[in-house]
Amino acid sequence: MDKNPEPGRDEILQAADRIRPHIHRTPVLTCSAIDHIAGASIFFKCENLQKAGAFKSRGAVNAVFSYDPYDIKQGVATHSSGNHAAALSRAAQLKHIPAYIVMPENSSKVKIAAVKTYGGKITFCVPTLEAREQKLNEVLIETNAFEIHPYNNYSIIAGQATAALELIEDQPDLDLIVAPVGGGGLLSGTALSAHYFSPATKVFAAEPSGADDAYQSFYQKKFMPSINPDTIADGLRTSLGSLTFPIIRRLVSDIITVNDQATIEAMKLVWERMKIIIEPSSAVALAMVIRHKHRFAGQKIGIILSGGNVDLMHLPWM
Amino acid sequence: MDKNPEPGRDEILQAADRIRPHIHRTPVLTCSAIDHIAGASIFFKCENLQKAGAFKSRGAVNAVFSYDPYDIKQGVATHSSGNHAAALSRAAQLKHIPAYIVMPENSSKVKIAAVKTYGGKITFCVPTLEAREQKLNEVLIETNAFEIHPYNNYSIIAGQATAALELIEDQPDLDLIVAPVGGGGLLSGTALSAHYFSPATKVFAAEPSGADDAYQSFYQKKFMPSINPDTIADGLRTSLGSLTFPIIRRLVSDIITVNDQATIEAMKLVWERMKIIIEPSSAVALAMVIRHKHRFAGQKIGIILSGGNVDLMHLPWM
Repeated sequence: MDKNPEPGRDEILQAADRIRPHIHRTPVLTCSAIDHIAGASIFFKCENLQKAGAFKSRGAVNAVFSYDPYDIKQGVATHSSGNHAAALSRAAQLKHIPAYIVMPENSSKVKIAAVKTYGGKITFCVPTLEAREQKLNEVLIETNAFEIHPYNNYSIIAGQATAALELIEDQPDLDLIVAPVGGGGLLSGTALSAHYFSPATKVFAAEPSGADDAYQSFYQKKFMPSINPDTIADGLRTSLGSLTFPIIRRLVSDIITVNDQATIEAMKLVWERMKIIIEPSSAVALAMVIRHKHRFAGQKIGIILSGGNVDLMHLPWM
Repeated sequence: MDKNPEPGRDEILQAADRIRPHIHRTPVLTCSAIDHIAGASIFFKCENLQKAGAFKSRGAVNAVFSYDPYDIKQGVATHSSGNHAAALSRAAQLKHIPAYIVMPENSSKVKIAAVKTYGGKITFCVPTLEAREQKLNEVLIETNAFEIHPYNNYSIIAGQATAALELIEDQPDLDLIVAPVGGGGLLSGTALSAHYFSPATKVFAAEPSGADDAYQSFYQKKFMPSINPDTIADGLRTSLGSLTFPIIRRLVSDIITVNDQATIEAMKLVWERMKIIIEPSSAVALAMVIRHKHRFAGQKIGIILSGGNVDLMHLPWM
């Protein structure tokens, strides 16, 4: 577990300085056709165009580059089926230390290939949370590597916060920012950046209705785990963490769910009209804004497109 | 035919000012994975992210907005199966004048839908150049509209030149810029901008080997028409024009051909690694640079990604 305090203004600005040489400053794009459909002005922060194809590169680089080199000299480790695995492998490669990744054996070939590209050492396990945690413990004992959790870690959260920080720098007068929520790393970082750098900007979360643990936790005011999540948005099936949930409760205005059909339609709309590749988890936020357009009519909305790692041989509309 | 002189420095800068409110300033993106493959530093000017999905919006807006309103008050017209048709329709819509588009009856549904989105009035014809020109003449007589040729028009060329102008502004120390060549509007505009704004930057063209009329014309030093072109790069099947060829002869360093297999591989590489959607015509330039990497090793290369209009139901690798 992380010994750092919850990131404040200084920690987020330090993270931005620390990661700058190792990440892309991603563009903020607009699309008049989508604005017309949504009845609002949308500014898309394109983290799908980020290194390793997702915002996860921000947190992973910030974590690996902020820890004491002595603590991580044996390497870093995590369990992840997705973008954090590739991002952490890449960050470790930049520091010339090993990355040990526990992946469920049913992980997509594309994600496995991405981890290998960045030199991550993969251990496969049965695809249950218990098996993942147990296998990771074995790996940690064997390698003496340092665990870097995908989201329940303040260095990760401070890194993810820099996406919203850049969006706010580029577009200072947003009425709201919408981020998708899975474990809550991106969402809590976004909420912290809005709080510190653009306090008039509200933060909303979008979540798949088939994996609505954050919605349930938010409204029942207690942690509700994600049980048997069923959604195409594979990045958003995880449960909130003990560090992310309190920030979300305190600083997020609302969490709104959306079904997978709307998400697939929004994903295809972005591909067709914006000519950029986003994964389903990225499309959830736009799907929510379009479905609830009466609520956001005429507003200036920032949407964080979280990632673009898609198997191009298997598209959801084919 | 155009009565203007060949665009000089002033005409290109005026075009940039004229079109600025109506187009995107597209981002210049980099990708370390592709740099590694190519053995060079590549700066991608993303005209696939342009309005209407292609650089053609630049020339179309510049033409429609630079002509005397009296001359075009009955509307504008062209024959095109592709991106110029949509771009001209959009430019005319901005000016509240009609756009009459002659399209071959075998045009892709996606391109037909794009023209309709922007209010273009379509007349279909048999898919031969003769039929297209004859049908366009009928339309011009009937409507009294003003013809705006897709590339053999100096206002169009000046507009297309602004893509390279922006690339040079963002990245002033390029060794070379590579553009694809079909009719030569983008290539001649790119060559003019490099000549006036970055004279140390060379301009290379990439052309499909199955439609190598520009290559043949360049080396035989006389106009050679495109006869039975056979390439997946549907935007590059046209012949050079009487206005574009002289500029290309004078200012382009070389034209290099590449086969469709390499183009499809380069297209998939950009989708996978950069998470942006480009059409085959856009991939020809990168394919050429990768195939001829020994020639460009270690150099700083600008590549103009010309467009991103693809039928997402029919991808060339599926």
